[in-house]
Amino acid sequence: MTAQTPVPVTVIGLGSMGSALAEAYLRAGHPTTVWNRTASKAEPLIGKGSVHAASVREAVAASPLIITCLMTYDDTLRVLEPAGTVLEGRALVTLNSGSPADARRTAEWATGHGARYLDGAVKNVPSAIGADDTLLYYSGDKSIFDEFETTLGVMGGHTVHLGDEADLAALYEMAVGGTLLPALVGFFQGAAVLQSRGLEASTLVPYAAKWFEMIISLLPMYAREIDSNDYSRPAASVNVFHRGAAADLDIGREGDVDVDWQRPLHSLVRRAVERGHGEDSIAVLTEMLKRTHA
Amino acid sequence: MTAQTPVPVTVIGLGSMGSALAEAYLRAGHPTTVWNRTASKAEPLIGKGSVHAASVREAVAASPLIITCLMTYDDTLRVLEPAGTVLEGRALVTLNSGSPADARRTAEWATGHGARYLDGAVKNVPSAIGADDTLLYYSGDKSIFDEFETTLGVMGGHTVHLGDEADLAALYEMAVGGTLLPALVGFFQGAAVLQSRGLEASTLVPYAAKWFEMIISLLPMYAREIDSNDYSRPAASVNVFHRGAAADLDIGREGDVDVDWQRPLHSLVRRAVERGHGEDSIAVLTEMLKRTHA
Ligand SMILES: NC(=O)c1ccc[n+]([C@@H]2O[C@H](COP(=O)([O-])OP(=O)(O)OC[C@H]3O[C@@H](n4cnc5c(N)ncnc54)[C@H](OP(=O)(O)O)[C@@H]3O)[C@@H](O)[C@H]2O)c1
Ligand SMILES: NC(=O)c1ccc[n+]([C@@H]2O[C@H](COP(=O)([O-])OP(=O)(O)OC[C@H]3O[C@@H](n4cnc5c(N)ncnc54)[C@H](OP(=O)(O)O)[C@@H]3O)[C@@H](O)[C@H]2O)c1
Repeated sequence: MTAQTPVPVTVIGLGSMGSALAEAYLRAGHPTTVWNRTASKAEPLIGKGSVHAASVREAVAASPLIITCLMTYDDTLRVLEPAGTVLEGRALVTLNSGSPADARRTAEWATGHGARYLDGAVKNVPSAIGADDTLLYYSGDKSIFDEFETTLGVMGGHTVHLGDEADLAALYEMAVGGTLLPALVGFFQGAAVLQSRGLEASTLVPYAAKWFEMIISLLPMYAREIDSNDYSRPAASVNVFHRGAAADLDIGREGDVDVDWQRPLHSLVRRAVERGHGEDSIAVLTEMLKRTHA
Repeated sequence: MTAQTPVPVTVIGLGSMGSALAEAYLRAGHPTTVWNRTASKAEPLIGKGSVHAASVREAVAASPLIITCLMTYDDTLRVLEPAGTVLEGRALVTLNSGSPADARRTAEWATGHGARYLDGAVKNVPSAIGADDTLLYYSGDKSIFDEFETTLGVMGGHTVHLGDEADLAALYEMAVGGTLLPALVGFFQGAAVLQSRGLEASTLVPYAAKWFEMIISLLPMYAREIDSNDYSRPAASVNVFHRGAAADLDIGREGDVDVDWQRPLHSLVRRAVERGHGEDSIAVLTEMLKRTHA
């Protein structure tokens, strides 16, 4: 066995995430070219051995694999526009959040310029970049995924190709990410309530963690109910949640916190009861969320 | 070492959870007396060896340890009222959800009748009852917790006493439970979006699970920020979530799902930006939720 020569990689966008990506490539010994709108953010990376391209065009020309990590697809297209002609024959991987529609638009633009295109999402925080169990998933041109699998694995050891349609990563990103803000605000609310009694938020952590683990353990069951469209044997019924809603509002009085953000959730549960789903599994809310059902 | 004689236990309330509790005591060899408003629900347990009390009074008189698992504190007080006088000298453990105020009221009632009182919460589903890592936490009279620790452990191996104030279990219950419905609806929304593309909800499970694990890993950091009231070194800033909000709404268009339930969350984030918290950690929302702040 001979060790593979590390593939030259270009990282465009050096925010918290892009900088972490470039550092991971430097650590792994890849010739790493970087570019960022605000040039000063390249400095720590230059010190670690990366090449600072003078233009996006030069950055794109430097490597067969171009990874962008900007905020949106619009930012990505705006930044790449001047380098369109040098993209020909290269592999472009975009790692920003955004809608499936924007992913489709970006795929069209990239392939229109003769590039192969893979869209992806980093499912973790910058400090987790490079770890074995850090997940990134991709969709689009599978030939990029196959050819550069090891190189992509430098960013996180758990890489998945979701399918050939370029917008699938953005679709899953949306589907998965929808739990983050609601779950966090639920935790912050709990912290605020404890503080109102002089208790520390840190005392909530083990129970909140256990609770999330319990939620994780329920997901396969809920997915089965949803996929089979059979909500008739509930582990926890809509009625249980409906009765719990009143208690959810008590938290506001008890802890002097604003619980208004929960009202639409409670009204969703109430509508499910009104439509005769009281004794069904709470997963029946999936059907309530579908506009065709509303 | 001599084996301890199992303590006689009374379980009042034989819904999904109460039945699971009674079964766990039967399995563990405890003389188990049961009572339920709808008497027929006692039948499967009688078949397994439990004593079916003819009245609540008789049920309470049968054991030194009385466990109730009804829906609310009001239900509990209504059911126990006729047995008030026989409660004297017994240990009463209530395992229903409800507000800290109701827990305080129930504690007063119970101690007023000469009973020792411990309030608790089952932090898992009925099918997890009896497992080593199933968590139940309690607050109130510590002498009950100490005297019956092994017996309480039959319901779940992970038992915690939160403090002497009887309402602490209800307070933590509220503080922890606030994430459940929001997190589940986030998952159901994701499932609905995938279904709109002909993809199965089950394909979402590993990524959603990983995502929740990531959220769990962030909780200690958020708790530290909240306890120190220092939000100035964000892993993910309010601005990142603010920009993400637009993408959250795209999910509605893409999957033809109703995302209105997220609007108050987005407006919370927007108000944080407006108050100059854009570059602070998202955990600063804890302060935004406090009414004194609003
Ligand atoms: N941070 C996380 O925890 C995390 C986790 C998973 C995914 N992500 C995703 O990763 C992507 C980047 O996030 P981040 O945390 O690195 O954000 P960030 O620290 O705010 O950095 C944003 C980057 O985008 C660039 N940029 C934004 N608008 C631009 C424009 N119009 N033209 C040129 N460059 C522009 C910025 O350049 P300047 O330096 O010149 O401003 C900077 O390089 C986002 O899509 C985010 O959703 C982040
Ligand atoms: N199921 C879960 O996943 C779960 C998890 C954690 C905690 N819990 C908590 O456990 C408690 C019980 O939940 P569950 O799932 O067992 O509910 P359930 O299956 O609906 O059973 C409710 C029980 O309460 C009784 N009840 C309700 N109102 C009553 C009244 N006014 N008078 C007399 N009895 C009354 C019912 O008696 P009848 O049979 O006569 O109706 C039944 O025994 C709740 O506080 C719940 O929050 C449940």
